[in-house]
Amino acid sequence: MLAAAAEQLFEHGLAGVTFEKVALRAGASKMTLYKWWPTPGSLAFEAYFHAVEETLAFADTGDIERDLSSQLHSFVALLTGAGGPVIAELIGAAQSDPALAEAFAANYTRPRRRLAVETLERAKVRGQVRLDVDSEVVVDQLWGACYHRLLLPDQPLEPPFVDALLANLLRGIRA
Amino acid sequence: MLAAAAEQLFEHGLAGVTFEKVALRAGASKMTLYKWWPTPGSLAFEAYFHAVEETLAFADTGDIERDLSSQLHSFVALLTGAGGPVIAELIGAAQSDPALAEAFAANYTRPRRRLAVETLERAKVRGQVRLDVDSEVVVDQLWGACYHRLLLPDQPLEPPFVDALLANLLRGIRA
Repeated sequence: MLAAAAEQLFEHGLAGVTFEKVALRAGASKMTLYKWWPTPGSLAFEAYFHAVEETLAFADTGDIERDLSSQLHSFVALLTGAGGPVIAELIGAAQSDPALAEAFAANYTRPRRRLAVETLERAKVRGQVRLDVDSEVVVDQLWGACYHRLLLPDQPLEPPFVDALLANLLRGIRA
Repeated sequence: MLAAAAEQLFEHGLAGVTFEKVALRAGASKMTLYKWWPTPGSLAFEAYFHAVEETLAFADTGDIERDLSSQLHSFVALLTGAGGPVIAELIGAAQSDPALAEAFAANYTRPRRRLAVETLERAKVRGQVRLDVDSEVVVDQLWGACYHRLLLPDQPLEPPFVDALLANLLRGIRA
């Protein structure tokens, strides 16, 4: 059912994810969907999370710069490919729909944020990131910066941007 | 007319900015509005830009950390006050409306980005920011990070966040 919901989402956008259409595509009963998901939005976001989970997995080579770099390059490839229009539509719609916003946060952005924070906390234990750095803030300065270029596309979202994000944050920008 | 459009925007959201309603409020003719703005969206965003221009002005004390800090604290105060719901609605609506997105970029986000980049370039000339840093990327890691917390509010947007953004970027996060 998650696979069917993800296919509907990528092909038809959020409007394509109704219990009726997903049930039809999955060959399941609508009742089953109602039982597991409170709203079509929560189904859509959980489906999106699972569809991109492998693509967005964090490597754990022991080198934080390398692991962040490979994950962020995958993330930007997703945003500049099939995932970009979908996620921009979701974030856009969430701004005027509190139930959708909560479903998106619970089923996609909070779990993804947690994975990123865990990666940064491991790097602290290994002595690669300063202990006084707030990992939550780093998430906004890496992934949030990418969302900014996706949603307000005044500058290009492309691979060199990822390298610049990491260089600025790891080295600092002071002369 | 810009003042009347801004009042409509803050009181009624984007739906309140029609040429008819703004003309009525400003005591102007609709024809004048049609002459100056191609769409109600472009009028709304130029009005928003002017309404917040003074609040979001960059000081130029010669100390980049201090100047960025005071501007970012004003920006976050705006986003957590009257401006937040308005700008979240605008960015949300822009995701499914290309004409609106272009009007927003041309009349608000590109001019604001330019002011931030100019401030950072001045700091390079003064030897406070490394010459090889891309100022455009810094914009995404400061203001973009704030937009991220506004649009995907999984973590609080509040004054200590601004201080952490600047500390991470100016010092770097490496142990």
